[in-house]
Amino acid sequence: MITEEIKKRMIAIIGPENFDDSKVGRLCYSYDATPDLQALPDAVVSPRNTEEVSELVKICNENKIPIVPRGTGTNLCGGTCPTEGGIVFLFKHMNQILELDLDNLTMTVQPGVITLDVIKKAEANGLFYPPDPGSMKSSTIGGNISENSGGLRGLKYGVTRDYVMGLEIVMANGDIIRTGGKLAKDVAGYDLTRLYVGAEGTLGIITEAILKLVPIPETKKTILALYEDLEAAARTVSKIIANKIIPATLEFLDQPTIAAVEDYVKIGLPTEAKAVLLIEQDGSPEQVEKDMAKIADICRSEQAVSVQMAKTVEEAEALTTARRTALSAIARIKPTTILEDATVPRSEIAKMVKAINEIAEKYNLPICTFGHSGDGNLHPTVPTDARNKEEMERVEQAFEEIFIKAIELGGTITGEHGVGVVKAPYLELKLGKAGIAAMMAIKNGLDPNNIMNPGKVFAKDSRKRVVVGQ
Amino acid sequence: MITEEIKKRMIAIIGPENFDDSKVGRLCYSYDATPDLQALPDAVVSPRNTEEVSELVKICNENKIPIVPRGTGTNLCGGTCPTEGGIVFLFKHMNQILELDLDNLTMTVQPGVITLDVIKKAEANGLFYPPDPGSMKSSTIGGNISENSGGLRGLKYGVTRDYVMGLEIVMANGDIIRTGGKLAKDVAGYDLTRLYVGAEGTLGIITEAILKLVPIPETKKTILALYEDLEAAARTVSKIIANKIIPATLEFLDQPTIAAVEDYVKIGLPTEAKAVLLIEQDGSPEQVEKDMAKIADICRSEQAVSVQMAKTVEEAEALTTARRTALSAIARIKPTTILEDATVPRSEIAKMVKAINEIAEKYNLPICTFGHSGDGNLHPTVPTDARNKEEMERVEQAFEEIFIKAIELGGTITGEHGVGVVKAPYLELKLGKAGIAAMMAIKNGLDPNNIMNPGKVFAKDSRKRVVVGQ
Repeated sequence: MITEEIKKRMIAIIGPENFDDSKVGRLCYSYDATPDLQALPDAVVSPRNTEEVSELVKICNENKIPIVPRGTGTNLCGGTCPTEGGIVFLFKHMNQILELDLDNLTMTVQPGVITLDVIKKAEANGLFYPPDPGSMKSSTIGGNISENSGGLRGLKYGVTRDYVMGLEIVMANGDIIRTGGKLAKDVAGYDLTRLYVGAEGTLGIITEAILKLVPIPETKKTILALYEDLEAAARTVSKIIANKIIPATLEFLDQPTIAAVEDYVKIGLPTEAKAVLLIEQDGSPEQVEKDMAKIADICRSEQAVSVQMAKTVEEAEALTTARRTALSAIARIKPTTILEDATVPRSEIAKMVKAINEIAEKYNLPICTFGHSGDGNLHPTVPTDARNKEEMERVEQAFEEIFIKAIELGGTITGEHGVGVVKAPYLELKLGKAGIAAMMAIKNGLDPNNIMNPGKVFAKDSRKRVVVGQ
Repeated sequence: MITEEIKKRMIAIIGPENFDDSKVGRLCYSYDATPDLQALPDAVVSPRNTEEVSELVKICNENKIPIVPRGTGTNLCGGTCPTEGGIVFLFKHMNQILELDLDNLTMTVQPGVITLDVIKKAEANGLFYPPDPGSMKSSTIGGNISENSGGLRGLKYGVTRDYVMGLEIVMANGDIIRTGGKLAKDVAGYDLTRLYVGAEGTLGIITEAILKLVPIPETKKTILALYEDLEAAARTVSKIIANKIIPATLEFLDQPTIAAVEDYVKIGLPTEAKAVLLIEQDGSPEQVEKDMAKIADICRSEQAVSVQMAKTVEEAEALTTARRTALSAIARIKPTTILEDATVPRSEIAKMVKAINEIAEKYNLPICTFGHSGDGNLHPTVPTDARNKEEMERVEQAFEEIFIKAIELGGTITGEHGVGVVKAPYLELKLGKAGIAAMMAIKNGLDPNNIMNPGKVFAKDSRKRVVVGQ
């Protein structure tokens, strides 16, 4: 609970305009992009710099007040829902690109910078920041780092983790530490940088980051391959990789997804195809030409009914943009959209797609599946209605089976969305009791009062997706 | 201390042939490649599988016996010197490549596999394992992972950390956990995989690893550029990167190093040049051609007195091999060789080289400097004699100044060799008290009895390089 005294101390640090405990203010931050999950925080604060973050954290630590660091709340795991109350930290005042270093190819940013602004700033200088989560137009880089966000370019370029070289972190006791640096190599101590990437705000608050940039690829080409058979598309994915070609993007969309997307964007997508692969390659013109010819051959050898190269940059752009709208497009079908991100080794994509379809049938649910097939990272998505409790129960059961199947195939319960509240009950499937114990030892060591985003990642009990504390 | 009862229990697990507490056996493992550092273990064990490792660790944990996991001891930071006694764990029975997965481009290995065997196995299958530490002919992959080894290809391809996708780890309490998997994306829980990479054996024992492989580059070219001026060479390095070219290798050798190497390999290296850059680019033939032309132009624009492209694969190979002998070549000069790996942002290379030369002069020491200049990762090296206490004192002081200068330039005390015993007193320079406290919280959480490689990474006091417990 926030006493009047605590409130006064906080206002003395950040000013009254940056402390909000009004009902309206609290309601605004009682949920994030995760469906069917809501809980009121006690207050919302907007510190203006790292020192203010540190001072606020010290007060919270003294008084055991939960802290929920929040970007724009685009996550899909309930990671920023204040399920245990406490204080939501916003970074709207800490939203500057502090430096673009053209000698070292780095960008230093505050957590509140929008991901797309990082990408655009890099591109304007002939550089490339590859991580491109679906939410990049509205997500913040601080959120991306805390969730280790992925995206369409993960296959060739890796994920957010691979582009974070250093961090400034406010620890649970208010200490400010700096990890890493503009350094291609650094083995001075434990890799705290990468421990905090993807820690979902449960170990501290990221207040600054040094991002790695790479030279921008010279050119890019896009292929759309259509299939009459889901598994043939999945086999194509494995075969491309096994042929030692790593495309920049290798996306999969099944028929229900294509239909939803076409209904939304209306660019003439082939709604009759059972599955579509959207394949991009970038690099030097010669290399791209060579790779794309091989890729087209592989698509045909796996019975693609059509293999088309985008003729213009605009046409290619339209296809990628269409793919990026998949979630929004499906979200138009029904009031609630449940999307997960079970991930398997690439070689198991065909088996996983097959299993998802069998599970959909078993539970009588319309599952649209799309995703980053080159990463083995699928997004089975169910348009549903949270008010239909009976159907929601079936949705939960179906996803539980999907998670179990992914683990069975050597996969994981979440490829890029994080554990948060929603997947916490399933984490043990992946890590086992001893793995969870190892994580808990780290958590207890770094946040002994459990103030940093409590209730996330670690499962309390078997509770699943529920509406809490409204 | 190892009591008779403990010895019996251990022998019951691994057999008498895999337990050695003879004076000779213990002497063999009382030191590693780090100069002037020695301490006797109480015993040396060679478990045959993960379960045996786990059983042995449980006994050590019960009895608070220090454990030193050891590959082939090629590290240069005293990381495998049993400074607090206890038991050295060898992995000579756990030295198999368990699987090469051509669909997922992964290799699953036991810790005792020699690094070069991983590289060769990959290459024989048209694949590439890029990390290539100087010791790769004799080092083990387990050691590489625990030290997060770098090498010549770090600039373009990253370090060991970037190629470890999953681990099997025996924790300090004997628990066996599995992290990661054959997964391009996985955010299920904290990134334990990368926490253990570079943890120097202080958090647990790595008993299996899934390595990421990439398609092998089609072709490679090598340039040797000679300079009359050290700083011009350093400026060339920055300029290449700032021109958005990332070469596969970008090595720097100063005159004393070139002279030592030529004296050793006798291939006609230009011993009069003040500095040499060895530059490799790989990729498609067109890309390599284009990049190398640009690189040659940049070298000339920075007053290189000669820019030569190797005419044959053999000639290129001879140059790289010569560079790889640098440490051995310098080691022939005097009985003791002290080599460090201070690392700075690439843009600061010129300043760092200049500072090293000034420090060498100040302390009247012959410092040979070579290293991975593209990474900002330099190896200032002093040929000396451990018996000359007065000179050794000056060596220590010189390196302390080098570390301080590196930090001042935004760098780190160790780019790829690890902290171990030797650099522990300097770690606080990089991380500050709060950073060390964060590491200590993790260490205490995961190894409460401090049995895992105790005395490493964390400084006890201000003691530096010393001969201990002979």
